[in-house]
Amino acid sequence: MKAIVVDNGLSFHAEWKKPTPAPGEALVRVTLTGICATDLEITKGYMGFTGVPGHEFVGVIIDAADDRLEGKRVVGEINLGCGRCDYCKHKMENHCPSRKVLGIKGKDGAFAEYVTLPFKNLRPLPDNISDEEAVFIEPLAAAFEILEQVKVNEYTRACVLGDGRLGQLAAQALATTDCSLLVIGRHEEKLALLKARGIPTRTGKEGLEKQFDLVVDCTGSPDGLSAALDLVRPTGTVILKTTVAQRTGDDLNRVVIDEITLLGSRCGPFEPAMQALEERRVDVKPLISKVFSIEQGLEAFGYAAQKGVLKVLIKV
Amino acid sequence: MKAIVVDNGLSFHAEWKKPTPAPGEALVRVTLTGICATDLEITKGYMGFTGVPGHEFVGVIIDAADDRLEGKRVVGEINLGCGRCDYCKHKMENHCPSRKVLGIKGKDGAFAEYVTLPFKNLRPLPDNISDEEAVFIEPLAAAFEILEQVKVNEYTRACVLGDGRLGQLAAQALATTDCSLLVIGRHEEKLALLKARGIPTRTGKEGLEKQFDLVVDCTGSPDGLSAALDLVRPTGTVILKTTVAQRTGDDLNRVVIDEITLLGSRCGPFEPAMQALEERRVDVKPLISKVFSIEQGLEAFGYAAQKGVLKVLIKV
Repeated sequence: MKAIVVDNGLSFHAEWKKPTPAPGEALVRVTLTGICATDLEITKGYMGFTGVPGHEFVGVIIDAADDRLEGKRVVGEINLGCGRCDYCKHKMENHCPSRKVLGIKGKDGAFAEYVTLPFKNLRPLPDNISDEEAVFIEPLAAAFEILEQVKVNEYTRACVLGDGRLGQLAAQALATTDCSLLVIGRHEEKLALLKARGIPTRTGKEGLEKQFDLVVDCTGSPDGLSAALDLVRPTGTVILKTTVAQRTGDDLNRVVIDEITLLGSRCGPFEPAMQALEERRVDVKPLISKVFSIEQGLEAFGYAAQKGVLKVLIKV
Repeated sequence: MKAIVVDNGLSFHAEWKKPTPAPGEALVRVTLTGICATDLEITKGYMGFTGVPGHEFVGVIIDAADDRLEGKRVVGEINLGCGRCDYCKHKMENHCPSRKVLGIKGKDGAFAEYVTLPFKNLRPLPDNISDEEAVFIEPLAAAFEILEQVKVNEYTRACVLGDGRLGQLAAQALATTDCSLLVIGRHEEKLALLKARGIPTRTGKEGLEKQFDLVVDCTGSPDGLSAALDLVRPTGTVILKTTVAQRTGDDLNRVVIDEITLLGSRCGPFEPAMQALEERRVDVKPLISKVFSIEQGLEAFGYAAQKGVLKVLIKV
């Protein structure tokens, strides 16, 4: 099968070995995939991953023990727990210490014609979610994780820092609530996408010091936490959405003095993301910067790494 | 009056100006005071404070508009809010942006014969709390703040990192709940104090990785957070109790990946601390390393700064 492979760099292979489903797994014909910041990091050696990357995908089940599942259009949860530990027993496979993660850790991913995943990871798609939308469900779920972690209501003054891929999705997730929301970014053209949805935006944080109950750092920058701590009020909450190399820790004294809650936030549940897409409460299509074919995979990765680019998709 | 004064270093003065109570304030004759890590930092220039330091005290009201208050033995909450901002209106004077803090910021403290404080900051003491115990109420309240911030119950596996002043009090506060508790420290003689109260202790963290729902960092060390993150389970909580110079921030990626909650924690409410003392659920007296007179103030500070010393008191 065709596949994009990480092994001391990135390469496209026209003849890569097709995966065989393990017991309990389905074989899925991949239709469309998305490139995420983690994929770009993986090509630089993050997680020491080798094999087929890719964890944002939509596809069709083509081989399943149960015939009724064949032909179903699906997306897939990316964490594969051991099934036996306390985390797995409490539906927290995403924190299983020996978990595999699709295209990230110990499990070949979706930048290929075929991928295998346990049936319990797969979510059938309703007809009114297109492939172009469905491919955003995994990152959108990570954005909706914020609402799983923090109570947000009409009294919440929320701020999203960053107008990139994650900032856009986090802002849209927060905009499904009745909180008051502001997005602070650096790119007028990206902020314009949010403005078009009625979400207030700013390019600077001057005059907003300590004004927010909740600040979500989606900057992906070492300075993001410091900026978030400028904006959050005493006893407020800062959500860290991205891993960043060489973040400074001096700011943590402000966390102590102002009794800030700092919340790490990673993967989220698919259901609220799918529901928001179904009910048209979010719109991800304007975030698509360009679509490439799998044969153009290396070019697609190069394009996705450029500044100003939002979501790059690969059609398989 | 006699006073210990910070002004480019520490000095004892036999004739310092006695403070005059402002409207709404009482004049308190100080009886006993405690030296805290913050006091030691203040002598090195922390907060740029000049004047009389000291915020852990017990005293007697000697001048009050209401005669019935005179002669009352009291302790005092140390934050003086502006009384007008949103924080003050919500009983969060400790986060008022323009607050003064007794002996720390903008307000002379208790290492002196007399101190003034607003009536609303003073808490009359019941007879069964001795002066030696009462002087611990302020730091004990900071330890009980943990229980204000986190729900702790019989299922909670809690760990206190550090066996110093704060670690001892945090451990005793947690031991008033029915959580399972372990204190990890480096000093056998300090851990022995906890063992004597039936609190399990260890000198190393080997084999305990990711075993705790709640870890309280009372190390006061730049490495404390990293050790706490070794011990906390995914989606668990780490409480930061101390400000530390030059803490590293690289660990924050673990906060994201394991979706840890990091909670800054500072001052706490006096009531639960006083109640625990009254009901003999905590015992602070074994933590007294030595008592000095106010004339020996400089010696007392020098002694408090030595390794292995727990609480140093100054009798006024």
